[in-house]
Amino acid sequence: RELQKLRDDFSENDNAFFLCSMAIIIFQAGAVRAKNTTNILIKNLLDSCIAVIGYWAIGWAFAYGSSSNSTVGLFIGHSQFFLAGATDYPKFFFQYVFAATSATIVSGAVAERSEFINYLTYCAIISTFVYPILTHWGWSTAGWMSRGISSGDIKTTYIDFAGAGVVHLCGGSISFVAALIIGPRIGRFSRDGQPAKPILGHSVPFAALGGFILMFGFLAFNGGSMADIVNAGDGKIVALAMINTILNGAFAAMTYLIIFKLTRGKWSLLLTINACLAGMVSACAACNKSEPWSTVFTGSGAGITYLLLSKLMLWLEIDDPLDAFAVHAGGGFWGLISATIIAHDGIVYAISDCVNHIHCKKSISQAFAQLGWQLICALAIIVWSCAIMTPIFVFLKKIGKLRVSPEVELNGLDLYKHGEDAYPYESYGHGWESGPEY
Amino acid sequence: RELQKLRDDFSENDNAFFLCSMAIIIFQAGAVRAKNTTNILIKNLLDSCIAVIGYWAIGWAFAYGSSSNSTVGLFIGHSQFFLAGATDYPKFFFQYVFAATSATIVSGAVAERSEFINYLTYCAIISTFVYPILTHWGWSTAGWMSRGISSGDIKTTYIDFAGAGVVHLCGGSISFVAALIIGPRIGRFSRDGQPAKPILGHSVPFAALGGFILMFGFLAFNGGSMADIVNAGDGKIVALAMINTILNGAFAAMTYLIIFKLTRGKWSLLLTINACLAGMVSACAACNKSEPWSTVFTGSGAGITYLLLSKLMLWLEIDDPLDAFAVHAGGGFWGLISATIIAHDGIVYAISDCVNHIHCKKSISQAFAQLGWQLICALAIIVWSCAIMTPIFVFLKKIGKLRVSPEVELNGLDLYKHGEDAYPYESYGHGWESGPEY
Amino acid sequence: RELQKLRDDFSENDNAFFLCSMAIIIFQAGAVRAKNTTNILIKNLLDSCIAVIGYWAIGWAFAYGSSSNSTVGLFIGHSQFFLAGATDYPKFFFQYVFAATSATIVSGAVAERSEFINYLTYCAIISTFVYPILTHWGWSTAGWMSRGISSGDIKTTYIDFAGAGVVHLCGGSISFVAALIIGPRIGRFSRDGQPAKPILGHSVPFAALGGFILMFGFLAFNGGSMADIVNAGDGKIVALAMINTILNGAFAAMTYLIIFKLTRGKWSLLLTINACLAGMVSACAACNKSEPWSTVFTGSGAGITYLLLSKLMLWLEIDDPLDAFAVHAGGGFWGLISATIIAHDGIVYAISDCVNHIHCKKSISQAFAQLGWQLICALAIIVWSCAIMTPIFVFLKKIGKLRVSPEVELNGLDLYKHGEDAYPYESYGHGWESGPEY
Repeated sequence: RELQKLRDDFSENDNAFFLCSMAIIIFQAGAVRAKNTTNILIKNLLDSCIAVIGYWAIGWAFAYGSSSNSTVGLFIGHSQFFLAGATDYPKFFFQYVFAATSATIVSGAVAERSEFINYLTYCAIISTFVYPILTHWGWSTAGWMSRGISSGDIKTTYIDFAGAGVVHLCGGSISFVAALIIGPRIGRFSRDGQPAKPILGHSVPFAALGGFILMFGFLAFNGGSMADIVNAGDGKIVALAMINTILNGAFAAMTYLIIFKLTRGKWSLLLTINACLAGMVSACAACNKSEPWSTVFTGSGAGITYLLLSKLMLWLEIDDPLDAFAVHAGGGFWGLISATIIAHDGIVYAISDCVNHIHCKKSISQAFAQLGWQLICALAIIVWSCAIMTPIFVFLKKIGKLRVSPEVELNGLDLYKHGEDAYPYESYGHGWESGPEY
Repeated sequence: RELQKLRDDFSENDNAFFLCSMAIIIFQAGAVRAKNTTNILIKNLLDSCIAVIGYWAIGWAFAYGSSSNSTVGLFIGHSQFFLAGATDYPKFFFQYVFAATSATIVSGAVAERSEFINYLTYCAIISTFVYPILTHWGWSTAGWMSRGISSGDIKTTYIDFAGAGVVHLCGGSISFVAALIIGPRIGRFSRDGQPAKPILGHSVPFAALGGFILMFGFLAFNGGSMADIVNAGDGKIVALAMINTILNGAFAAMTYLIIFKLTRGKWSLLLTINACLAGMVSACAACNKSEPWSTVFTGSGAGITYLLLSKLMLWLEIDDPLDAFAVHAGGGFWGLISATIIAHDGIVYAISDCVNHIHCKKSISQAFAQLGWQLICALAIIVWSCAIMTPIFVFLKKIGKLRVSPEVELNGLDLYKHGEDAYPYESYGHGWESGPEY
Repeated sequence: RELQKLRDDFSENDNAFFLCSMAIIIFQAGAVRAKNTTNILIKNLLDSCIAVIGYWAIGWAFAYGSSSNSTVGLFIGHSQFFLAGATDYPKFFFQYVFAATSATIVSGAVAERSEFINYLTYCAIISTFVYPILTHWGWSTAGWMSRGISSGDIKTTYIDFAGAGVVHLCGGSISFVAALIIGPRIGRFSRDGQPAKPILGHSVPFAALGGFILMFGFLAFNGGSMADIVNAGDGKIVALAMINTILNGAFAAMTYLIIFKLTRGKWSLLLTINACLAGMVSACAACNKSEPWSTVFTGSGAGITYLLLSKLMLWLEIDDPLDAFAVHAGGGFWGLISATIIAHDGIVYAISDCVNHIHCKKSISQAFAQLGWQLICALAIIVWSCAIMTPIFVFLKKIGKLRVSPEVELNGLDLYKHGEDAYPYESYGHGWESGPEY
């Protein structure tokens, strides 16, 4: 039976790992110009490699190790380095995937202009330190966010089923800082006051395909997150989580598509995919304890949040090639908030209690206290992520290792850095005169 | 235990969903010209979104809701709208995937010339009405096809394990109607009596990759279909279903390939993939109750059926860019028939009984009665699908919303409709002089 | 319960099958020139089809059938042809995937110049005869390698958890022979003493994507291999196997990347992927009985083995377009050896026993005897694979069916052999004047 559970968890995790990694690879490859494709591909390969070594060596210990000192234990664990003594391998595997994901989100924001050493640095730091500490706070039983506050009838905790905060808000916040410090790509925002000119990815099919796969990756993630916490009777919850996730994505996509069509007159594919992903990110917070109808609110809200934040980035002239901030930070933050509004025991349920005269005051107090605590947690995630990574990006900028030279940026990273053109000219074409005859 | 089952079902369903959706996306993207690639991609995204909202809101209620009136109940259900009161989430998820599939089959037949509003319309109608009613008839215990007729020793039912009829024959029949009404792409069939000139898809690797993935999607589907109906001792059947599916595909592919090689002298990849898919579609009907040796018959027959129907379409000058009719309607219909011939209790077994003098007459009567009922069911599926969709396509044609203008068709849908070129010219090339040096 | 197990096994196997097949398809498609893309794609399709028919008809019988004569039974089985009487369908499915894999490895070595009939021939022979016999030797309880030798305290067996030897060393050895006999592609090695000029694949994204997917395929394989042999308490081993596999790959990739960067100054993507794959191949031998720290040794060693063997091939002027020999034979052989050194009960553990004065002599004798037996087995695999396939390649060469004519090779195989250009020129471009406006 235990074996059974282990194998199932792994099967689910392997799916999630596979889908997520593959998706991000194709998604990002399609969204950059052909001259930088190899660069973003190798970045993703090394992300997986560095994260597994780093999370194995020390990340796991910070996140799920214990501490003999209970005050220290609120903030960090420090046992089971190199997995010594750890036995919960499936959990390790799943958490490693999350760690790699939170690191890889950032690469979208600095794409097409980052030094390679910058990738290696932030990837190592996020997967071994920034993310593990956050999971210790929010997901280990000893962490301060997960313990929450208790006072009388009121009991708060951190509500985040599948990483809306510790993975997506974390990665999204760092993306904002990174894109801000590294500066926009040459030509993205004109210096003479001309309108911004978009830099298009070289392959819509790749980008679209990656986006699709990412959606299914969310299903696997949000189903797999169940692994640790279910009890025997909770079977329905797994199913619920997945249906909510897909409905969230659908409503976010439809909301965005309709607004875009009405204002611009086109049916945009790539932006609709981003909106759909933002909807699924928002589902991560509480898809296990929401009813399907709630996705109308959470999903549509995520679509609008994405729309507003991506406009904000354009207005601020911060160049985030893959909208990593708007999708992940926007969707993640909205998900955390929405979880306290429309999920079970949320504000809507409290109001419903009041309408029905059932424990009105207690329900309302509890719901708003939870909202407050959730806001504190979200703020803590943002502050922590930015506080650690900002000095690192600034330092790399100072020593000239943050961004490639303008010459390399304009000519493309692939040949200069990697010696591998993504589509070598001489490998195309054939020598036959005529075309096919059927 | 129940939890276990739920999680397994979801894992299987998630696989099927993922594989099938991704496959069709890539398959169709590769099979159209580059100028229409974004169009077909966004169509697939919205297919998933519309189908989940529509099937959640009303499709499920029509299919698996109950009816207090038993005569009405033979034809339609009408409870559990918006999943209210429904608890079988895994089944919902699986059925939603089927609903989205039956709708998406059609898009292959109208590719490269359909108005966007046409996609949205037929997708919504098929996934919320046409397909759900068919599943009510064939797969709910109350439906008339599933109840069949009983008379004396003879008892017929509708044999369709994984949707050969209600999914593939349905989608394939609608494809025929849609392709007929919308008319061929400009340049596909010459008006001056010149030979037909094929319009080639822009990427064989995409088309081939999509086709491959679709094959594995069939394995997941045909394994997953077991979920509802197995009893404890039936474990072998799951395994059998998958082995039969892949053997069916292999025999269909080899049969087609050899015929094509002998008549044309080439080893055709794309058509062989289509033949392989037709073989797997035919396996959907009875892969759970056939012996592996029967796939020689079912698979090879499916390959030949596909060959004949695709020739027929050319001869009729109906332009079906992805051969949706020949693959899905042909494979599905052949599968339904073959199931009454060579699967367990089929005509071959009845003849074998006679040869061995065991209940000869009863076996023969039962087998042919089942064949007759199966033909009635297949006919009902075709008639129902076409009867609902034909007026809709004709109406859309009348109001000018079925097909884009010739100018848009010739110049491509992507930029005009979506503002997104699949391969933006300015995103290619690099600025370096020399190539790589190893 | 049995059902449960069957379904799980299938789910795992379906994953492995899907991932592996899809990966190799994309990997190889990206690694050849555009003019030969269709050729390599159809080759992969037929590989799957031929292997399933062949393994069903006779391969399974040779591998896992029994023999009434126990001496014959050491070398070959001969019952259950056409699966008659076989009931272990999941094992059949899994073994079929291995059979198809060992055949498809070879296609990388003869890519871009092989006659189609050569593909069909070696694929049929490897999947129905060469590979099944090897599995009979190593994995059936009756085989001579698996029985090993017993003498006093010493008991040896063949250690190969997931096919490092019978799949990868077999396929890799045949690749060497095939590449040697077929000769290098025109232009790969100059005849005038000029330096070798690499022939680049046409799509780095495809090659990279395929490589990534292959990595996850290894996880599914190495998890799935557990199916047959676990007992109730061994759950941890499944998890361990997967973590070891990914750590192995990570260390191999990092080792190779660093050496390459230090010697060449570039961060090479494609070669790093190959190194990572070699690391995962090496994990196949004993990932179920190694500690995570051992991957530092096994993985790094695999990276270096790959590096040396790929250099050796260049130096020998043997043209192996996908480095099939260096990755699979190198990784597989190193894995088999490493398993007797650093896995449980290996030489390192024996030395540790000696240091701690525990059964020193017995441990050392056992460990080195096992190393010796493992070497004999590896040698037997190499000799058997080459001994069967060499005459076949030589014969095909003699009758002119091994390699296409220089004209076809230079102009490309796709149009001549298959009538299908991978990227038809006329299917690109659009008719609109201006680009998109946001």
